[in-house]
Amino acid sequence: MSVEHPFAGDPVFDLHVGGKMAIAVTVPLTGAEELSLAYTPGVARVCEAIAEDPTMTQHYTWVPNTVAIVSDGTAVLGLGDIGPAAAMPVMEGKAVLFKQFGGVDAIPICLATTDSDEIVETVVRLAPSFGGINLEDISAPRCFEIEARLKERLDIPVFHDDQHGTAVVALAALTNALKLTGREPATTRVVISGAGAAGVAIAKILLGAGITDIAVTDRRGVVSSDRSDLTDVKIELAALTADRNGRSGSLADAMKGADVYLGVSGGTVPEDVVATMGHDAIIFAMANPTPEVHPDIAHKYARVVATGRSDFPNQINNVLAFPGIFRGAFDAKATAITEGMKLAAAEALAGLVGDDLAEDHIIPGPFDPRVGPAVAAAVADAARRDGVARD
Amino acid sequence: MSVEHPFAGDPVFDLHVGGKMAIAVTVPLTGAEELSLAYTPGVARVCEAIAEDPTMTQHYTWVPNTVAIVSDGTAVLGLGDIGPAAAMPVMEGKAVLFKQFGGVDAIPICLATTDSDEIVETVVRLAPSFGGINLEDISAPRCFEIEARLKERLDIPVFHDDQHGTAVVALAALTNALKLTGREPATTRVVISGAGAAGVAIAKILLGAGITDIAVTDRRGVVSSDRSDLTDVKIELAALTADRNGRSGSLADAMKGADVYLGVSGGTVPEDVVATMGHDAIIFAMANPTPEVHPDIAHKYARVVATGRSDFPNQINNVLAFPGIFRGAFDAKATAITEGMKLAAAEALAGLVGDDLAEDHIIPGPFDPRVGPAVAAAVADAARRDGVARD
Repeated sequence: MSVEHPFAGDPVFDLHVGGKMAIAVTVPLTGAEELSLAYTPGVARVCEAIAEDPTMTQHYTWVPNTVAIVSDGTAVLGLGDIGPAAAMPVMEGKAVLFKQFGGVDAIPICLATTDSDEIVETVVRLAPSFGGINLEDISAPRCFEIEARLKERLDIPVFHDDQHGTAVVALAALTNALKLTGREPATTRVVISGAGAAGVAIAKILLGAGITDIAVTDRRGVVSSDRSDLTDVKIELAALTADRNGRSGSLADAMKGADVYLGVSGGTVPEDVVATMGHDAIIFAMANPTPEVHPDIAHKYARVVATGRSDFPNQINNVLAFPGIFRGAFDAKATAITEGMKLAAAEALAGLVGDDLAEDHIIPGPFDPRVGPAVAAAVADAARRDGVARD
Repeated sequence: MSVEHPFAGDPVFDLHVGGKMAIAVTVPLTGAEELSLAYTPGVARVCEAIAEDPTMTQHYTWVPNTVAIVSDGTAVLGLGDIGPAAAMPVMEGKAVLFKQFGGVDAIPICLATTDSDEIVETVVRLAPSFGGINLEDISAPRCFEIEARLKERLDIPVFHDDQHGTAVVALAALTNALKLTGREPATTRVVISGAGAAGVAIAKILLGAGITDIAVTDRRGVVSSDRSDLTDVKIELAALTADRNGRSGSLADAMKGADVYLGVSGGTVPEDVVATMGHDAIIFAMANPTPEVHPDIAHKYARVVATGRSDFPNQINNVLAFPGIFRGAFDAKATAITEGMKLAAAEALAGLVGDDLAEDHIIPGPFDPRVGPAVAAAVADAARRDGVARD
């Protein structure tokens, strides 16, 4: 098919002509009788049934299988604040991954506001139309507040993928890397470089998984309470991480003897700093497209290396998590996504590697067909254990 | 397929299980290379192209082919104010008709607010994600203000289907009924019963089509300036209609000798009142499911009879209009839907009947495959004439 467009001949743009998704009609609509069932007069009885008992929405609409992918376009990929229109191709991409890997119907909603109050109010007003809310590419620290307020206001799953999707996959990979290097969570020392959405969420999920010796660093060094420049989010983070083990100082200070480096910063770690890490070190340099430590350098000092890129082994890719997490939440008719559900997702992901565990294989690939179903089943079970399931 | 659900065995509910629509992925996504084109890293270049030139949205996203079907659930079918959750089956129905008959990707958005300011602000914030806004089942008089304010704020088509869709199809049918009974618009006397969304819009489109002797009635009789109980909308309406021809009084007064009765009220017109209409009268009793005048009674006094029902001839059905109107607006990349585009849609619809024109065939049926393309072509041409096209 040849379509005229400004960047014709460029494979990326050729693929994007007309966008990446469409609406599909799932009922027959070829004659008057079918029309009278799907639309008036028949549809009125379905409306009345829902008006009488709102739980009928779960049976007779597409709502319980839908996610709104909500972004304000302020923190898109490595591009930053490019606005809602320019963010759309990423949100469509996310939507097609939701469908392909989780059977979830996701709708990209890019908002023409960056005001936290307005975003919260807008999403609350949209909520009757969706079974869940996936927040995406909203810059820190607003993303923390927006997610917290929406979780408080809504009784459907709310999930900021840049935080929790990344955290789940990183924990899964780290679980297997610790196993491979014979470490126990309780005695493992971790440095997380980057105190934005992903860094904060990774720190919290590691704590939930029993890893307590964590130092999170930002551009000024370790986030610790001896600093006077911390935001509210970072004050809380310091108390949960570095302060518990008396860590402070520079990134280089934190790296000396550390077991694990998790990079979600986009910066670069000098080779002489990498060289100070402990024996059998673990390096996840997840910045895209340029890892904080190039794998060639990382391998000189570390036993296990992962990145966010598809062209190196051990790709830490959110697509391993969010489709299955929402699939599982929807299957259990969950009212929220709990910490237990995220931990269960990470455990299921890690478990899929099984006997194939090796330095260059600590996490399944995105096209492993077992991933979505395994994550979904684990998440649904956890929802039931945590008392948020309605199935 | 057998699925357990509360109303299993009822054909309407059986058809509604899981809803009536889904997301379809329109790009290949089966391997790492495809993923790198549709998502990271490839997608970043599409984002950058849009950030640099927002018109690239028209080429590389699904946005220009999408409509948000926005409702607050306050005036759903004949059911009234049933709220956003219960309105969803109607909005899904509308969405599947948009796709089936116009190739338009429509997303149902049912809002948890009935406040006009909040609805306007919410839709403005959503607008970057959609190519057009179809307002639906929002009660009068708020619907007028909401539509007017959104048209002012947005540079994409905004269309309240309960007003303009009904008006376009009614005008198309009336055009053919006048032709059949040898009437000229300028000398035709019309009574519109119902001064809500549809009644006001029908009055306005008839004026645009050259019909000037119109009396609109509400529960208290003809909307005319000798009354002291009129809202702002009705004061404007009176000046445009009854006042121009000195009409006032009761519905019965208005009906005496009238050429045309257009019912969008949901009330009932007594047979003795129907009997006072002029020779070769035209009766469109469009209330659903109970026409204001039953066709059996209407036929005793009128030469041409239409209803909103599929089980009688001459169904006045919005589905004849909205899919083609948005298709045409999108094909022309129109920034608005003008009065000229609505008149062109009505003319195209009326024209499709051609030589088959007869008392029981004044309007095409909803499954006539010529309808969508003919309306779309006429609307796109009118957009270009009216200077709102960007193609």
